[in-house]
Amino acid sequence: MPKIKGFKMDKKVYEYTEIIERDIAENNLTNEEREELAAKIKPMLCDDSIVLAQVNPTSGDIKKNALKAKKWIEWANMLEVKAIVFPETFLLGAPIGDYIIKFPQIVEEAREWLDVLAKIAAKTKVIIGFVEFNNSDKSGKYYNSVAVLSDGKIEKIIRKSVLSDYAELNESRYFVRAVQDDETRVVELGNKKAGLLIGEGECVSSDFGGEGVNFVGKHKKNIQPDFILACVASVSRTGKESQKHSMLSYISKKYSTPIIFVNQAGASDCLSYNGESCVYNALGELIYRAKSFEEQFFIVNPFDNEGMIYPAATGSDKRMNSENKFTLDYEPDLERTYKTIIQSVRDYYNKNGFKRACLGLSGGLDSTVCAVIMADAIGKENVFGISMPSKITSAESKSDAKKLAENLGINFIEVPIKSMFDAARDNFNNMFSQIEAKWDCRYKQSYTNDNIQARTRAMILWGISNEFENCLCIATSDKSEAYMGYATINGDMSGGFAPIADVTKTKLFALARWMNEHREIKNAIPNSIISKRPGAELAINPKTGKPLLAEEALMPYEFMDEVIWRVENTHQSIDDMAKSEFLYERLEHITKEQKLEWLEKFFRRMTSAGYKWSIMPPAPIVDTVSINKTEYHQSILSSGISYRKTSMQEKMKLAAIK
Amino acid sequence: MPKIKGFKMDKKVYEYTEIIERDIAENNLTNEEREELAAKIKPMLCDDSIVLAQVNPTSGDIKKNALKAKKWIEWANMLEVKAIVFPETFLLGAPIGDYIIKFPQIVEEAREWLDVLAKIAAKTKVIIGFVEFNNSDKSGKYYNSVAVLSDGKIEKIIRKSVLSDYAELNESRYFVRAVQDDETRVVELGNKKAGLLIGEGECVSSDFGGEGVNFVGKHKKNIQPDFILACVASVSRTGKESQKHSMLSYISKKYSTPIIFVNQAGASDCLSYNGESCVYNALGELIYRAKSFEEQFFIVNPFDNEGMIYPAATGSDKRMNSENKFTLDYEPDLERTYKTIIQSVRDYYNKNGFKRACLGLSGGLDSTVCAVIMADAIGKENVFGISMPSKITSAESKSDAKKLAENLGINFIEVPIKSMFDAARDNFNNMFSQIEAKWDCRYKQSYTNDNIQARTRAMILWGISNEFENCLCIATSDKSEAYMGYATINGDMSGGFAPIADVTKTKLFALARWMNEHREIKNAIPNSIISKRPGAELAINPKTGKPLLAEEALMPYEFMDEVIWRVENTHQSIDDMAKSEFLYERLEHITKEQKLEWLEKFFRRMTSAGYKWSIMPPAPIVDTVSINKTEYHQSILSSGISYRKTSMQEKMKLAAIK
Repeated sequence: MPKIKGFKMDKKVYEYTEIIERDIAENNLTNEEREELAAKIKPMLCDDSIVLAQVNPTSGDIKKNALKAKKWIEWANMLEVKAIVFPETFLLGAPIGDYIIKFPQIVEEAREWLDVLAKIAAKTKVIIGFVEFNNSDKSGKYYNSVAVLSDGKIEKIIRKSVLSDYAELNESRYFVRAVQDDETRVVELGNKKAGLLIGEGECVSSDFGGEGVNFVGKHKKNIQPDFILACVASVSRTGKESQKHSMLSYISKKYSTPIIFVNQAGASDCLSYNGESCVYNALGELIYRAKSFEEQFFIVNPFDNEGMIYPAATGSDKRMNSENKFTLDYEPDLERTYKTIIQSVRDYYNKNGFKRACLGLSGGLDSTVCAVIMADAIGKENVFGISMPSKITSAESKSDAKKLAENLGINFIEVPIKSMFDAARDNFNNMFSQIEAKWDCRYKQSYTNDNIQARTRAMILWGISNEFENCLCIATSDKSEAYMGYATINGDMSGGFAPIADVTKTKLFALARWMNEHREIKNAIPNSIISKRPGAELAINPKTGKPLLAEEALMPYEFMDEVIWRVENTHQSIDDMAKSEFLYERLEHITKEQKLEWLEKFFRRMTSAGYKWSIMPPAPIVDTVSINKTEYHQSILSSGISYRKTSMQEKMKLAAIK
Repeated sequence: MPKIKGFKMDKKVYEYTEIIERDIAENNLTNEEREELAAKIKPMLCDDSIVLAQVNPTSGDIKKNALKAKKWIEWANMLEVKAIVFPETFLLGAPIGDYIIKFPQIVEEAREWLDVLAKIAAKTKVIIGFVEFNNSDKSGKYYNSVAVLSDGKIEKIIRKSVLSDYAELNESRYFVRAVQDDETRVVELGNKKAGLLIGEGECVSSDFGGEGVNFVGKHKKNIQPDFILACVASVSRTGKESQKHSMLSYISKKYSTPIIFVNQAGASDCLSYNGESCVYNALGELIYRAKSFEEQFFIVNPFDNEGMIYPAATGSDKRMNSENKFTLDYEPDLERTYKTIIQSVRDYYNKNGFKRACLGLSGGLDSTVCAVIMADAIGKENVFGISMPSKITSAESKSDAKKLAENLGINFIEVPIKSMFDAARDNFNNMFSQIEAKWDCRYKQSYTNDNIQARTRAMILWGISNEFENCLCIATSDKSEAYMGYATINGDMSGGFAPIADVTKTKLFALARWMNEHREIKNAIPNSIISKRPGAELAINPKTGKPLLAEEALMPYEFMDEVIWRVENTHQSIDDMAKSEFLYERLEHITKEQKLEWLEKFFRRMTSAGYKWSIMPPAPIVDTVSINKTEYHQSILSSGISYRKTSMQEKMKLAAIK
């Protein structure tokens, strides 16, 4: 991604808009102060200035969203800009859910608010996303629409005509594809014409396999837009910003038309919208970009890009070293990963009315990274770290957990689980011998005792959540473990939110190092936590006499995480994988048999982990592709799924055809 | 639904096909015996006889499905019928999941099996559903296609052109809408022409708001079909069979064209396909119907409907007394409900390799109904009922649980939870006082102790699942409780499968009575269980000094279940509901204030229950509409969702517009 060339809004304007943002949030200015501020800003704006309302809506809370819009609109009016532009479906708040199917009155409520907002609209046009009733067929589906409000009225409505149904998007479930004249898309803003697009899908040019932006450049003068205006609700993922950059830069250059891209900020359950609304000039150069993962009252001008950008958004503009190959160099994606999760956790807690969190601190990597995240997202005083040692827990783990809590300044307590564990084990031993009398199928070796430990810990955490106001415990499972089903139901995978469930183990190590380097308080994470090899400390490895390490039970994380990457990002089968070289093979020599054994173990474990994925708590989507259930639709019943291909010869033999 | 008029295949043919089905399953006949049997059946068939392969596929297990198809095809070949017809997507097995996106080689594998099956196809044509690669665009999506195999070759391929995206269906995610000549749909079968439809959506006539069956009746003679053949994968739900009947009867009558509807049997996670493949004559009369929830080698002839039907499918052909009004008369839907759940549980256990189940027996209704279901679905010897009394558990509950287990013949054991509960409580008391020193927000009254009981019980059940081979515990939550969030996370809502999570409490009472009457062993459920008022026995009601009853904590079940019904089946808002009469109001006098209080409590509790829905174990879909997460897409973050409309006046006031 190239450097941003710079834009008209200099440091001064930026500081002024921060005052506006504070006023919108806190209502802290008098009308006189507002007018004074507006008078200072106006001379610094150009003729074609537009406000991009990079707002954080609350899904389904129409009143809240509408009253928020009102405040932003009033400020835009005061600045007399040409328009203020909100994201797609803003009045309902992305993501749209089945509530609009069950409760059409919510859609009606939003429609009425649109009429109210229209009354506030003056010379500054208001361009705002909503959901529109559709009377053209009996499908019961809606239009995903954007309204243009001006001079007290709804001037026009533009409807989305390219629907998306990949990953977290299921638009065909809710919306019909609109058929409309290209002319409809044109919005007059002063002496300029904007061509309106709705959603990611409409921005994807046919040169990239999509069917969007078809209306540009093929028309007679009167509907040829001077710039393209895209109202979008786009979720952050690894590599997505650079993909978006390629797309937007390509379009603006191809059609020699600037493009403005308005995205929302904020998170909703698993989806973290990154903001970073941006503008490209007619040469395909990025000339403005708003902050990442924050609301911003962002003044832009697609025809003027002199001056310095301030402050530059950070976190998403670096491209991963290789987009098409697995790498252990996660650095370019770490700031974005951190921000994605922080925003998700913060909004999940805030929007759902939670204030406090508790989590188990094992002294291991997962709970450590989670503790840092919780402290940064909801405030260290609101976090309680609970160390719950068993007899397998090492002295080092205990002291690491304590040290971490001290460094972070979070609350800390040690709660031994021995008495609860013993009571369960004694009860179980008695019970199992009675059951054995009827069921002659008791395992010689079982995970029962390992799991009692994990479940006792979860019971303690849920107990705290039940006992203290607005407290919610979290699950500390990571993505590598989720793939392997290496987590205990009602144990470590249980909690109100799972902050790192879409981050693989090797990336977590990198993230821990990054946090140590980039947080205000450096090196909060004791080095011993980052340098030790992970293990659940639930069982002893009979071979070593020490706590069983995860890699002994599974396979090296570097290998595992590359299989995960390949499953998600390539279309390779297990056989394709066996044939091509893994990064790990360049680091360590492994035999062909060893590699195949790991691959088979991976697919076998992944298959039976499906059940655990289905009951995983909500977790932020972080990666390009993920198994988050908001995104990944898969039945559990897939134990026989044909991951391996058979040859035609084998098939003929199986079918007994000569 | 009218009575079936009867059909050619009499008791004898039915008995013969049962021998065929056994041979397919067990391979128990010699080739000579097969030829002998075929020779007996052939003279009883008509010229245009067709075999409907009502088969139970396994989603994703291509080899298993293909080899199953092979056996059915070979038998059809021996009978020299005109065709054997399999359901939609059969080779992959409905439901399709995201595995076809991640692993295209699975689609390739199925495509190759199609070539193998083609080699088996002789004069009897094979009509079979699969998933087809699409090279017509860059979408990466597939066609949902049906192949016609004959004489060793693929004769033609028909593609689905009406995709559905409601409830459990997300077809636009996987498939592109095919554009093809109507002529393509015509399949020559002897001197008759079949017009092929794929899926429910293509059967919905425009008179019912759909866009299917458009090709019939508008064409010149050469593509006018003699009968319609629909390959479908259709899930069972309350009222769906009678809807389907209306549709199919309407179509066949309108176009004076018989219609054959081929559905699959079997379940996959939450979806239970009911089979009941059927045939309507040109007068719109139902003339054949296959068994419900079972595989069947079903020989039909759309042009001949003399004779007696044997045996008639039961369970789905009764219409609920009122389709558009809430009723407590569940009788017409109980047999279907029972069969839907039994098939779901059986297939979930069988297809996932589980053999045994354990569940808590509280002596209450939910666990009782679950125990009956488990005994009937996987065999009484494979079920262990665990009574886990606490000090609140009444003597009656204990004896009811024991009596039930005896009557059912399942294994039974009593495991007191006192020692585990005490250990947890003591540990918690100590811990809470330490935490309180930092967090001054401890509840005066909390649910912590109630929940310790529920979580201890779940810990015991998961312990048994961990300790004994192929054992999986179940969750006994019902739908009314799910709506109210009246279930404990990691407690009673935890388990490997949740058999009754889509059945409301009032319907469960009816189901319990129905089971007592219709199971081979009558009255297995002690009457005292059915007649007592439900309560979780986790806490004491301070007002009565007795265990708190659920209705005391919530609202009367008759009222609650009608709100659920209205939320799912009408588009009413909370205000609409307040205005219209509830069935309960005819039974008991309640004040307007009381009613509004209950309604508000319902919506408030439903909103915060969203989190629990998201981590509910897989559960069979039973009702017309459900909150099963396979079907219902909703973010949790909806605590502010605008269930109540505000007036325009209120809005103007909120927006401070005069």
